[in-house]
Amino acid sequence: MSDAFRTALPQAPIGRIPVQDVRPVVDHGARPAKAVVDERFDVTATVFREGHDAVNASVVLTDPDGGEHVLPMTCTNPGLDTWVRTVSADRTGWWSYRVEGWSDPYGTWEHDATIKVRADVDTELMLEEGALVLERALAEVERTAEQKAVLQAAVRGLRDTSKPPAVRLKAGTDAAVEDELGERPLRDMVSPSAEHALLVERELALSGAWYEIFPRSEGATYDEKEHRWTTGTLRTAMKRLPAIAAMGFDVVYLTPIHPIGQAAKKGPNNTLDARPEDPGSPYAIGSPDGGHDAIHPDLGDFDDFDAFVAEAERLGMEVAMDLALQCSPDHPWVAEHPEWFTTRADGSIAYAENPPKKYQDIYPVNFDNDPEGIYTEVRRVMQVWIDHGVKIFRVDNPHTKPVEFWQWLIADVAKDHPEVIWLAEAFTKPAMMHTLGKIGFQQSYTYYAWRNTAADLREYLTELSGEAAAYMRPSFWPTTHDILTPYMQFGGTAAWKLRAVLAATLVPTYGIYAGYELMEHVARPGAEEQIDNEKYEFKNRRWEDYEEGGPKEGRSLAGYLTRINEIRRAHPALHRLRDIRFHHVDDENFLAFSKRRRLPDGTDDVVVVVANLDPHSTRATTLRLDMAALGLESGDSFLAHDLVTDEQWTWQRDNYIRLGPEVEPVHVIAVRRPW
Amino acid sequence: MSDAFRTALPQAPIGRIPVQDVRPVVDHGARPAKAVVDERFDVTATVFREGHDAVNASVVLTDPDGGEHVLPMTCTNPGLDTWVRTVSADRTGWWSYRVEGWSDPYGTWEHDATIKVRADVDTELMLEEGALVLERALAEVERTAEQKAVLQAAVRGLRDTSKPPAVRLKAGTDAAVEDELGERPLRDMVSPSAEHALLVERELALSGAWYEIFPRSEGATYDEKEHRWTTGTLRTAMKRLPAIAAMGFDVVYLTPIHPIGQAAKKGPNNTLDARPEDPGSPYAIGSPDGGHDAIHPDLGDFDDFDAFVAEAERLGMEVAMDLALQCSPDHPWVAEHPEWFTTRADGSIAYAENPPKKYQDIYPVNFDNDPEGIYTEVRRVMQVWIDHGVKIFRVDNPHTKPVEFWQWLIADVAKDHPEVIWLAEAFTKPAMMHTLGKIGFQQSYTYYAWRNTAADLREYLTELSGEAAAYMRPSFWPTTHDILTPYMQFGGTAAWKLRAVLAATLVPTYGIYAGYELMEHVARPGAEEQIDNEKYEFKNRRWEDYEEGGPKEGRSLAGYLTRINEIRRAHPALHRLRDIRFHHVDDENFLAFSKRRRLPDGTDDVVVVVANLDPHSTRATTLRLDMAALGLESGDSFLAHDLVTDEQWTWQRDNYIRLGPEVEPVHVIAVRRPW
Repeated sequence: MSDAFRTALPQAPIGRIPVQDVRPVVDHGARPAKAVVDERFDVTATVFREGHDAVNASVVLTDPDGGEHVLPMTCTNPGLDTWVRTVSADRTGWWSYRVEGWSDPYGTWEHDATIKVRADVDTELMLEEGALVLERALAEVERTAEQKAVLQAAVRGLRDTSKPPAVRLKAGTDAAVEDELGERPLRDMVSPSAEHALLVERELALSGAWYEIFPRSEGATYDEKEHRWTTGTLRTAMKRLPAIAAMGFDVVYLTPIHPIGQAAKKGPNNTLDARPEDPGSPYAIGSPDGGHDAIHPDLGDFDDFDAFVAEAERLGMEVAMDLALQCSPDHPWVAEHPEWFTTRADGSIAYAENPPKKYQDIYPVNFDNDPEGIYTEVRRVMQVWIDHGVKIFRVDNPHTKPVEFWQWLIADVAKDHPEVIWLAEAFTKPAMMHTLGKIGFQQSYTYYAWRNTAADLREYLTELSGEAAAYMRPSFWPTTHDILTPYMQFGGTAAWKLRAVLAATLVPTYGIYAGYELMEHVARPGAEEQIDNEKYEFKNRRWEDYEEGGPKEGRSLAGYLTRINEIRRAHPALHRLRDIRFHHVDDENFLAFSKRRRLPDGTDDVVVVVANLDPHSTRATTLRLDMAALGLESGDSFLAHDLVTDEQWTWQRDNYIRLGPEVEPVHVIAVRRPW
Repeated sequence: MSDAFRTALPQAPIGRIPVQDVRPVVDHGARPAKAVVDERFDVTATVFREGHDAVNASVVLTDPDGGEHVLPMTCTNPGLDTWVRTVSADRTGWWSYRVEGWSDPYGTWEHDATIKVRADVDTELMLEEGALVLERALAEVERTAEQKAVLQAAVRGLRDTSKPPAVRLKAGTDAAVEDELGERPLRDMVSPSAEHALLVERELALSGAWYEIFPRSEGATYDEKEHRWTTGTLRTAMKRLPAIAAMGFDVVYLTPIHPIGQAAKKGPNNTLDARPEDPGSPYAIGSPDGGHDAIHPDLGDFDDFDAFVAEAERLGMEVAMDLALQCSPDHPWVAEHPEWFTTRADGSIAYAENPPKKYQDIYPVNFDNDPEGIYTEVRRVMQVWIDHGVKIFRVDNPHTKPVEFWQWLIADVAKDHPEVIWLAEAFTKPAMMHTLGKIGFQQSYTYYAWRNTAADLREYLTELSGEAAAYMRPSFWPTTHDILTPYMQFGGTAAWKLRAVLAATLVPTYGIYAGYELMEHVARPGAEEQIDNEKYEFKNRRWEDYEEGGPKEGRSLAGYLTRINEIRRAHPALHRLRDIRFHHVDDENFLAFSKRRRLPDGTDDVVVVVANLDPHSTRATTLRLDMAALGLESGDSFLAHDLVTDEQWTWQRDNYIRLGPEVEPVHVIAVRRPW
């Protein structure tokens, strides 16, 4: 049809077959939906047409090379005209998808002919019209000789006047005919939706186990006689890597390793009167020794860093660097580019403030004064670390820098290094947290540390695993070097076990901050963070004391964390987010959920987690499983293998559960079919 | 910043100040939001920024001449960063709107200075920075001398070292200064959302009272001796117009007036054996006398039609034509353009079917065979009627024709005739019904006839008055010539009163089908439509019998409908949809809602409707009013003036209510302040 018969702007023309409400769609299509390789997700749409003829729909997935994959959709709610197709992408890169609505002449004929031939209305006409539709299907759609033969036989059967009408009709509506036209349909009036971008990233963007260390603490020693610390180095921290790898972690995350400023340096427990020998906060970045592109001389040099990265790699781990874009007053940028900071009315450079509080050891960068200069410099700095093998950056407080800066930086790095992963540490309001995911961050710290009740966790996971899963990937940390909640301060061993297991199973990426094994639960008075925090001082945890034969043997959760990570590795269902299902437990102190994933061999991996969230009381209750969510019938029973304790029971829909500090706080159950 | 520092496709760049989730937005911005002149609606958005500086937001409304109106928004939920501004447009045409997020240097300074000066931190510096911000506000934003004077005084006050700091600070944070900067702010980093189209239409597109007639029935007479009907005509139907106008209706809607085919003509009560003297269904359009561009010779000619339209206009009413795009086999198109229909395998033209049912009196148009030819012809036909003064079309079954056809037709007519209103009679699934609103229909018939319980009505009105109100305007009809629900068949007088009042007050447009006054409640057996339906025969309702002194005086609801329309005219609150609020009633058989509208004189028009939806029982209950929704305090009392009965009571938050067939089924209350 000529353009004169198309509706013009300001209205976009609707298609011949309307396709509405395609999902996922991020920011009305302005930004991509995201997935990792082989991550299954549903594409849904509302597709309908005028009149009574049959309508149908396909998802068209376009791969990074432009290859189009046409996938049939299924109508899940005829009254609401909703269609769905579960899709996945088999490699990284920029894919796209659209939904095509189309008129289905075979479907129309099959519906009408089945009714009319049965009622003997227009019988001969309907059978001939079926033959004509199938002849079109033969002429207009490419098929192998074998595939053609199915339709050719149907055409002959429809026209075989020696047979009764019911037999002839059957020839045209046979399952083989339906299957052939289901796979290679005759599609009329094909009407595409808008094309939506899909960014497919690597597995670690969605799923991984992280472990955080302050490198200077690992190998730091205190000389009791001299009252002096000797700093740990990249070389001594490297010696800790085998233990971290042995616990089963995938990523080792280093707090900043850059030179630290002396100006307004912080002392132990965030005090303002640091002594010269105090190491200062690694977040007060920059000194005459260099800035974000340099390594603190106490930690070593780039050779040491390369060795550290290589050792991590040898052990099967990646190194995540901290990117804290702020400066000590001693940072080289301050002297070279005072215009990159805010100058106050009195000519001084503005330090960080939260009025009336002042943080005089930190100058925030002012991106608006010279955005091109700052963008270029930060991009250069990133390349330094990428060239030294870093593929993951944990970004400190991204929500205090312009969102458009991160969008540009992440996209610009991805041009040459699409494997790079960025984790946003944006403990801030939901709009900012979600938007950072939308504009490019592969992962986001979350509110997990403050979601401690079953109702809160269910609500939060429902949000995270729903539409948000198309653009924001949660990372769950029970503690960090900034966060020690009352639940962890006062919950005892049950709390430390629970929160690690929940973090590791509710979502695919979780993180542990060094010292978690030792349940370091004492907070600095008035703060919800650790006392004697290693942000401000050296910390020698004497790991050797907890090893076999050591004075504190058995007083570490290292073995427990190891078991959690083994379970995660063995169960691919735990590497996915979107398919979480909650189950009913009578006692509201309990949380029960499951994950299920189809494996390449066609079987399902199914894991059920049941937790008593009250760390102080052992409780008994009844769990009612949603058996369909586990791929079972309501009357089935199955072998429930507790992967934490290695116990096994026969479970069915309703099960007696007893969990708590007297026993174990949580079951992690593999669902095994005993038959 | 150069493009090298902007994110490129497939991601759209986010703004310096992110603006997310602007609403209303229809089909991701592909289609306009709609409103009528002076219809207030909320533009909302999520606007936030990095760091601690103040963020602010405006709606920019652009009028059809390109004039931009910058309107301040208010943050309604700081935690969720949601902003709102109620807007309206003062004339018809294509408007647009966008939301601009911006950095607010005055807001930042005022926040910080208030805290720091109070704590005596950087006092002199903060006061000087305030003076500098205000100097920028003076230099960069246009102001009158008087407006400038406010800020100049503030600058002097901030720098007046003879005064204590608190006094100087006050000079810069005074309400007059805040107001001036609220109206004409200093806006940094202005970041626009996408521009969204807003189509502003005339009042009747949203609000009006319709009355439906079959013109041939009005003035039809039956000769008992000869057993013969004489048809009504446009001239006799014209005589009915004063009575319709006297009842207070705004629109008189005529079922089709075109020539009727003889082929397979339907007889009384939808029988297939019509006699030659049966008039046939006016929906079987077309005969040798002409098609959709012709008038049935029995009804008159174009002079008669022009006279009818002129008389309606003289009485303050508009005429709505029926557009039923289907053909009798006798329609001229069938002979001239057989390609506009579907040809079956045997060469015959396909009639309408719902297998195995056949409707042999109707040939559906097949738009796909020659869309350009059909589009052009239908557009020509529309112009015939527009040239004869028709500005409203009621479209019969638009959901059986391609949606893209309607989109084109409505838009093409609007180019020269933006005043034309189209009502979609799409009693079909929600996706189609909503989409027809999105692509251009000004109004939609709805599921109202089947929503009879309070819970159903609340749910349905919540849907219609929410996001859907931006694109779909409901028309509520208690009955039509096709619809007579069991509620109306068996509900008695209470039901007929109730359903008219609810239709007239729940939404701004409602319609009455002739005979409603007479409560014609008998259905054809096996059907939910009237027996002896005037679709298939003449009907003389003998209106004169119900007049004063007539044999059936007092047995008509004409007076009741007249009162309803008087109430509607007197209460502008009832002309709007989006502001409906529901109130609690203890008995779930009751429905209570209110509407409130700000009038040009600054007062509020407030109407409360309370209905007992059980037409069979008089019931008493307690109504608990949401006083804030009425613009009242929770402890207030007010004069409740029942506009149906003219009674008055003093009401407060909790009120005793008794309604039902023994009294009246519904209160329509004007809220009057007695003070």
